[in-house]
Amino acid sequence: MIKKLSHMGFAVKDLDAAVRLYHDVFGLRPLHRWHAADDGMEAVSFQVGDVEIELMQPTTEDSPIARFIAKRGEGIHHVAYKVDDVGEALHKAAEAGVETIDKQPRRGGDGKTRVGFLHPKSTMGVLTELEQDVDRSP
Amino acid sequence: MIKKLSHMGFAVKDLDAAVRLYHDVFGLRPLHRWHAADDGMEAVSFQVGDVEIELMQPTTEDSPIARFIAKRGEGIHHVAYKVDDVGEALHKAAEAGVETIDKQPRRGGDGKTRVGFLHPKSTMGVLTELEQDVDRSP
Repeated sequence: MIKKLSHMGFAVKDLDAAVRLYHDVFGLRPLHRWHAADDGMEAVSFQVGDVEIELMQPTTEDSPIARFIAKRGEGIHHVAYKVDDVGEALHKAAEAGVETIDKQPRRGGDGKTRVGFLHPKSTMGVLTELEQDVDRSP
Repeated sequence: MIKKLSHMGFAVKDLDAAVRLYHDVFGLRPLHRWHAADDGMEAVSFQVGDVEIELMQPTTEDSPIARFIAKRGEGIHHVAYKVDDVGEALHKAAEAGVETIDKQPRRGGDGKTRVGFLHPKSTMGVLTELEQDVDRSP
């Protein structure tokens, strides 16, 4: 089911300070910076080996990242893995008794993926995203 | 400084239940199971791509993992990255104003690495481990 790690998402209060740490100190290469209005966040991604790190700063007070920080403080928000078929993976997880946040795959924020989340109460506290690359071939 | 992601450590209450999730549902391959008496934990590692996941269950009430779970619940405990020289990396981080838990590298739990930790209050809430493979050549 899980093929590889895709990315980790970190919730931060100050995106610029976080970028300075990951770029200036850790020496990682920024890939993209984007504003996800629907998710109420601004984010910067970094490449580390074949995995990405996403630093996410809330831009609205009621966004999921803002609520996460209010409840738990800054830190690791979610871990995402590549799967071949996210619909099948969600179905298999649900059949095994894992509570899924998404019953059906939905479009990833970047439009290049289909994703589904597993609920942290079924995954030992780790908000787990399953991600499938969208086939763009004709 | 950071070359690649090495592993993520997840704090769990029930190691056997966690292993069932990562093996039976996620289909990941267990690598090792070990008891780290000094750290008061039992752990199982899994391979996912070229990264490892470590599931860690406390075996004593006052172990770091037990205290983490008591304070924050189950979840992601730390993220570890490979560096070429952990002593130099700790020094560089400290010079940049990052608080380090370890002032000098120490021996990793598996004896094959030298490691040092950065304090989460300097790394946006992420307990960050820097890890150097020990050169075993003569």
